[in-house]
Amino acid sequence: MTIIKPRLPKGMRDFSSDVMQKRNFIFKNIRKVFESYGFSQIETPSIENMETLSGKYGEEGDRLIFKILNSGDYLSKVDINDNINSKSLAKQISNRGLRYDLTVPFARFVVQNRNKITFPFKRYQMQNVWRADRPQKGRFREFYQCDVDVIGTNSLLCEIELIQIYDNVLSNLKIPNVNICINNRKVLVGMVELMGESQSFDTIAVSLDKLDSIGIEGVKNELSSKGIGKDALSILDTFINAKNISEVSSLLQKSKIGCEGIQELEFILNLFEKQPLRTSSLVFDISLARGLDYYTGCILEVKINDVNIGSLGGGGRYDDLTSNFGLNDVSGVGISFGLDRIYLVLEELNLFPKNITKNIDVMFANFGMEEASFCLSLIKDLRDSGISVELYPDAEKIKKQMNYANNRGVKYVVLIGENEINRGILSIKNMASGEQSDLKIEALKNKILNG
Amino acid sequence: MTIIKPRLPKGMRDFSSDVMQKRNFIFKNIRKVFESYGFSQIETPSIENMETLSGKYGEEGDRLIFKILNSGDYLSKVDINDNINSKSLAKQISNRGLRYDLTVPFARFVVQNRNKITFPFKRYQMQNVWRADRPQKGRFREFYQCDVDVIGTNSLLCEIELIQIYDNVLSNLKIPNVNICINNRKVLVGMVELMGESQSFDTIAVSLDKLDSIGIEGVKNELSSKGIGKDALSILDTFINAKNISEVSSLLQKSKIGCEGIQELEFILNLFEKQPLRTSSLVFDISLARGLDYYTGCILEVKINDVNIGSLGGGGRYDDLTSNFGLNDVSGVGISFGLDRIYLVLEELNLFPKNITKNIDVMFANFGMEEASFCLSLIKDLRDSGISVELYPDAEKIKKQMNYANNRGVKYVVLIGENEINRGILSIKNMASGEQSDLKIEALKNKILNG
Repeated sequence: MTIIKPRLPKGMRDFSSDVMQKRNFIFKNIRKVFESYGFSQIETPSIENMETLSGKYGEEGDRLIFKILNSGDYLSKVDINDNINSKSLAKQISNRGLRYDLTVPFARFVVQNRNKITFPFKRYQMQNVWRADRPQKGRFREFYQCDVDVIGTNSLLCEIELIQIYDNVLSNLKIPNVNICINNRKVLVGMVELMGESQSFDTIAVSLDKLDSIGIEGVKNELSSKGIGKDALSILDTFINAKNISEVSSLLQKSKIGCEGIQELEFILNLFEKQPLRTSSLVFDISLARGLDYYTGCILEVKINDVNIGSLGGGGRYDDLTSNFGLNDVSGVGISFGLDRIYLVLEELNLFPKNITKNIDVMFANFGMEEASFCLSLIKDLRDSGISVELYPDAEKIKKQMNYANNRGVKYVVLIGENEINRGILSIKNMASGEQSDLKIEALKNKILNG
Repeated sequence: MTIIKPRLPKGMRDFSSDVMQKRNFIFKNIRKVFESYGFSQIETPSIENMETLSGKYGEEGDRLIFKILNSGDYLSKVDINDNINSKSLAKQISNRGLRYDLTVPFARFVVQNRNKITFPFKRYQMQNVWRADRPQKGRFREFYQCDVDVIGTNSLLCEIELIQIYDNVLSNLKIPNVNICINNRKVLVGMVELMGESQSFDTIAVSLDKLDSIGIEGVKNELSSKGIGKDALSILDTFINAKNISEVSSLLQKSKIGCEGIQELEFILNLFEKQPLRTSSLVFDISLARGLDYYTGCILEVKINDVNIGSLGGGGRYDDLTSNFGLNDVSGVGISFGLDRIYLVLEELNLFPKNITKNIDVMFANFGMEEASFCLSLIKDLRDSGISVELYPDAEKIKKQMNYANNRGVKYVVLIGENEINRGILSIKNMASGEQSDLKIEALKNKILNG
């Protein structure tokens, strides 16, 4: 036998039971809100055909998809010639890849099941995604996304409910100083139109997204180096420096699509002025572009001020995603929660409830096979009443068993030796108070249930 | 834009919301039992190093592992020569693979975290595994396993609790005619020893596992063709025809390890004679071998008579699994539930509870943006009380909205038009009875909560 060093691939993580309980706490909170808004859960497989995945996330995204080697004798039909390289070979030996986000598989699902689905279709999905990205704080190669989308309607009420969902979940989790940033792709399209640079929309969107990190001058330098002219950059400057949405609105007067975007934004912003969010702030942010994503209308991104961690989630409206799979004119809108980042924020701000790690209610100490067998039916009865019970598996020294109970956060230890069996009583120790008392065996369940 | 036909890779599945609710019902039942026995949840990543996975599941298993293509310019260090073939190239261009079961990653986890873990360590894990197997009924390429294991003790009480867990979960799910088959590797080792074929243990185990499908003669023919002699096969025949465990026990008198196996089996069987299982039968089965698995002691497998679907789960004791990662003398024992097969059984026997698919409590009809905006704060209030509410997103014809409500299984539709707003009342329709009535707006929540 070759001995293997136990280790994980780069960017992969194990979750211990303490961490799992905290993660489940977040899942439960998100799920509860999603369901209260009438969303139903679906799941799609981890593995999709490469043709489904590729070309949807930009060139960079395509590079980051985990590709699966074809099964069997995958080389048998491959022409290995002098020109072969990693990219051209990959196309021949890898037809499938791991899910990169939840939205593209969702669009595939909708088109594939369009005859079974009632539209508007409201679904949520909480699953892993994989990206072969360079790992860093808050960025992993396998992480959870929790998505809600409505597809099959243009109604801005969907955007409004999605913003409420962000607010609802993050308020329930008690995360302070949350900004839900909002913009509209149409506003950006209008702006780029006025800059006379419509053909460079993607380039400008990608640079604009970096405003937070590299500043206005940085953005302008980058764009200038990519051939965007001085006049255009001066218009961009005016937009970025606009103080509020009405200033942006006046700048956009001459752009039809820009005005459309402003109208949509104003409808949403006005509504939340009359019916405020619970704890989050809704903030118009002209620089929010969300790079090469498939958005066509409203765009959203959640930022928090107290932890330096990037966004906790984002989303927006997409008009053309199902067109990739042959279904036109079906508009959708959705948002995503990044489970792993929310976890880091709750941890860093110490916001997990104190009693979150569920303990074991009772441990039965082990005095030998005879005694343990006697305890089994008692234990069964407790478990059937919803009490979590462990039976220590070996008749070790009682000190070792007590240490184990301590480490596991056991509330009561029950001691039943030969003596106790003969007398029909048991000893019970409250591990928090250290108090130990005797009890009739048949009184145990009552004691545990009522303290 | 190239239009892609929406489709799934072979053996992959989407789960609609009806299916998800049923799957979650099973998960919830399993989780509840696991936790009542004091097991804590952990998770390991989907992707493991190939060196962790390979060599643990036999040659066939190795072939079925999904391999991930290395990232970046993976060919740069590869020597493509005339001898290159699929197998030799795979080793150079794929360092990682998808999890094939939960037990090997668990063993890796235990060794890697041995200094943080309190032994005996009781964990459960409910995650996907992937196998590039030929898909057929009840066999998928991505499926869920739900595993419980105890590691760090030899105590037979663990086997006893695991058998109780099988019984508990399957009784709760009301699956009838469950046989929990039990055997012990030591009994098989003893038998093969008496056959004088110890060096062919694996071959004999693999053939023996096929007894159900190919019969005694089939097994003997197969083994004969693999060089097992006539005398040996006649001993095998005697064992297979033994009527019960005491007959097997007398056959094994001369094998020390065989007697050990019998003792362990008898302890377990006797205990369950005194303290019977709830609905399952515990059945000693000398032909249960579980092929090339890593088991060394007790082996278990769950079979049901009413649906032809293979086993619902299996497990056993393994003494050497952590040795692969450099930690010796740590015995473990565990069982696995196959979620997807349990699902098929519940579906086929019509055992899912009738009310399992959760419906939407209330839908608000949409009479326009003005009216919808008015409804939003009412809706928020209901949702905060745990009621699931949808607002129909568009002011479509009321008939279309009602059809949607019907399809979605909505209980009440609330109608608030301009008129209603002015009068401070609303109309509410009970979708089951068809009854429609008027109500003061502030009385709505009470009506929904109390019917």
